[in-house]
Amino acid sequence: MDLITMDDLTNDESISLLEDAMKLMPVARGLTHLPLLEGKVLGNLFFENSTRTRLSFETAMKRLGGEVLNLSEVGSSVKKGETLYDTMQMIEGYADIAVIRHPRQGAAQYAADAVEIPILNAGDGAGNHPTQTLLDLFTIRQGHGTIEGLRVVLVGDLRYGRTVHSLSRALSRFGASLTLVSPESLMMPQEIVRDLKSDGCDVSETSDLISTLPSADVVYMTRIQRERFPDEAEYEKVAGIYTLNSQDLTSSHSNMMIMHPLPRVNEIHASIDSTSHAWYFKQAFNGVPTRMALLCRSLGVQIPEVIN
Amino acid sequence: MDLITMDDLTNDESISLLEDAMKLMPVARGLTHLPLLEGKVLGNLFFENSTRTRLSFETAMKRLGGEVLNLSEVGSSVKKGETLYDTMQMIEGYADIAVIRHPRQGAAQYAADAVEIPILNAGDGAGNHPTQTLLDLFTIRQGHGTIEGLRVVLVGDLRYGRTVHSLSRALSRFGASLTLVSPESLMMPQEIVRDLKSDGCDVSETSDLISTLPSADVVYMTRIQRERFPDEAEYEKVAGIYTLNSQDLTSSHSNMMIMHPLPRVNEIHASIDSTSHAWYFKQAFNGVPTRMALLCRSLGVQIPEVIN
Amino acid sequence: MDLITMDDLTNDESISLLEDAMKLMPVARGLTHLPLLEGKVLGNLFFENSTRTRLSFETAMKRLGGEVLNLSEVGSSVKKGETLYDTMQMIEGYADIAVIRHPRQGAAQYAADAVEIPILNAGDGAGNHPTQTLLDLFTIRQGHGTIEGLRVVLVGDLRYGRTVHSLSRALSRFGASLTLVSPESLMMPQEIVRDLKSDGCDVSETSDLISTLPSADVVYMTRIQRERFPDEAEYEKVAGIYTLNSQDLTSSHSNMMIMHPLPRVNEIHASIDSTSHAWYFKQAFNGVPTRMALLCRSLGVQIPEVIN
Repeated sequence: MDLITMDDLTNDESISLLEDAMKLMPVARGLTHLPLLEGKVLGNLFFENSTRTRLSFETAMKRLGGEVLNLSEVGSSVKKGETLYDTMQMIEGYADIAVIRHPRQGAAQYAADAVEIPILNAGDGAGNHPTQTLLDLFTIRQGHGTIEGLRVVLVGDLRYGRTVHSLSRALSRFGASLTLVSPESLMMPQEIVRDLKSDGCDVSETSDLISTLPSADVVYMTRIQRERFPDEAEYEKVAGIYTLNSQDLTSSHSNMMIMHPLPRVNEIHASIDSTSHAWYFKQAFNGVPTRMALLCRSLGVQIPEVIN
Repeated sequence: MDLITMDDLTNDESISLLEDAMKLMPVARGLTHLPLLEGKVLGNLFFENSTRTRLSFETAMKRLGGEVLNLSEVGSSVKKGETLYDTMQMIEGYADIAVIRHPRQGAAQYAADAVEIPILNAGDGAGNHPTQTLLDLFTIRQGHGTIEGLRVVLVGDLRYGRTVHSLSRALSRFGASLTLVSPESLMMPQEIVRDLKSDGCDVSETSDLISTLPSADVVYMTRIQRERFPDEAEYEKVAGIYTLNSQDLTSSHSNMMIMHPLPRVNEIHASIDSTSHAWYFKQAFNGVPTRMALLCRSLGVQIPEVIN
Repeated sequence: MDLITMDDLTNDESISLLEDAMKLMPVARGLTHLPLLEGKVLGNLFFENSTRTRLSFETAMKRLGGEVLNLSEVGSSVKKGETLYDTMQMIEGYADIAVIRHPRQGAAQYAADAVEIPILNAGDGAGNHPTQTLLDLFTIRQGHGTIEGLRVVLVGDLRYGRTVHSLSRALSRFGASLTLVSPESLMMPQEIVRDLKSDGCDVSETSDLISTLPSADVVYMTRIQRERFPDEAEYEKVAGIYTLNSQDLTSSHSNMMIMHPLPRVNEIHASIDSTSHAWYFKQAFNGVPTRMALLCRSLGVQIPEVIN
């Protein structure tokens, strides 16, 4: 099973993965040693920088007894002009499954078409990042018990941010309402907004973050990523436009969750870290159990009903 | 046991390694988990870029239950001016066996002389690359059942290409006939041709690739490597001189094998990939079982007669 | 248990660690497979280059059956402006224990305060490097059976060298006498000398290495590290000032030990390598058993009384 976009999963399949992930929590925390993937090899192909995604896949595989091959552009044949097709043929010979992050949109699908081993998209340029969406959904369910009926505020770069593109569609499918907060130059692409609405999602757009806080169940902050901007001047205009500190949260529900795919630069002030609103570090950790569930599913390995 | 050049192995020892490699195929494919090297540590020392060689050694070790330490020039003490002698003393303390790739000819032998753990040469400048030769021999036997009596065409940079130097001597020893195809500036060094002939090998030289195709059993293409040329202008004259596409193969035997150590740039057109002539991806995979066999041999670990 | 400076350990605790390390020698050498740390994950965080320290922690963990995540500044979110606090929160989610090397003094303590998993300082700028001190003490005990009453000569950059700062205090606590050899511009900071003396340590200072050799039990050479100097010209004045070759040792005791944290540049001539004075390569290896002992201690894993 490949995972290139969230559209590769039905709602039931997504929920089933999240339930597997919940079962795997003691393994993810290192409390239980469960070598379900012993003898399996994961190719971790990162043609673009990453820390959390790469390391959480690596931890997920290793805590399940599997092995990891790391390949980055540094020190590889990609520099000698090798095509992605040829690189994938090689990896298919050396690994049982591969994760790929690539700066070019569509690269993960191309890689999946080139080989028969399962391919998991870990971000393809401005395209998709479905494993981030899975861990985000997992985290919201952890905090609120459900996704249906929640009001989720997505904040920041909604134009170039692949994370919020995947996430908004998934939240819509699970019955959340969405508030989209961005400066005019970074609004959510209108075809996505149109799709969300035609799916029956309650969507509103604004550039004012503070006004959305009293009714929010989840505030999903994002970093405005310099590397996605075609023009540096355009970046400078909007850098640092949305920030939250603990004083901004006085009107919020006590169980309002603040999330962030990390790394943050200054979007969330450290004064929030010690509040009950801070979910972003738990969210980063949740990459481990969700990716464990996905690795097992893709490799056809059954997760035991009860894990002690 | 060190492996620095193919001369370190008798024909019988080579054949025995290839037979071990054949037995290990299910382990190399990940179909069987056989932790023969559990508790062993491989030092993977790459002072020059590599992808296939590094990763296939890593996969070989890990699929056999062993551990791998990766060391490259980036982020290491080599930058602080450490000698290879001192680096090897360190590695001997941390690993049970080491693979070394180094830009300087003779470096692998130097490393082997410096320590007592087994050293496997993974390419030393324009010198040798014996594990590539082993996997090439394995692949030819896989395709034709034997090496004796085959007509093998070696194509491209025969002057600087360490791969074809090692391979031509080995093919000669196993009774193949050789056709050497290169531009004048990249001909096989005359002392090697002389040695081949005095070994009784049937060797011919030409610059015309197409004329060799009807009678070839194996066509071994190579990349003309920019990094081996002392002079950029000399490189530009011959870059891209030999290419094959599926239409060139109409006169070939149906079981003619096209091989390439990879990465290819444009030597072999993608139209060949789906033909029965395309052996280069299988060849890359074959690095795993052959290097498994070699790791076991060098570490004194017996391979079971029957592997299920 | 964190280890940030040697002050975190009482003398008894240090000795107990060194005794554990001695028991673990057959495991460190790869003669015995003892997977005491199976299922555990070590985060190896190197924000500054290292070879021996990184690799010996990696070998220590792997020979004990544990797993390692490597994180360096290259290819990580640190480049995207992530704070050390946030990086540590992430690592706490992915690993059971972490080793950190960082160019900034105080960084290891900061990291330890940020998370609950054990943190081991592998060098923080001009600050501390306690695991180097442990392996140095282990090596001296291996050579002389004790530390008490020995005359240890510390040579080279005593001003910026964190290794000799940690080591001098520890040697003093264990009853060694110290001779400090450096050029005037690189003398041991006077507050450290004062502390050593007020501890009752017999300390003398000189710039003449040769005169110290007849009475020395241990000569601890260090590299004068270009990267620690604020000013290149100041470095050039003292580079290469202290060197030893085998002829300098004619007046020394036969069991005088020469040590060096490595890499050496030209401080110790190769003619010494084959003499009984050469302990620096054993010292590098000793990083494995001492770090094994420390990993077990920090993770609360008991070492068996008898290891075969």
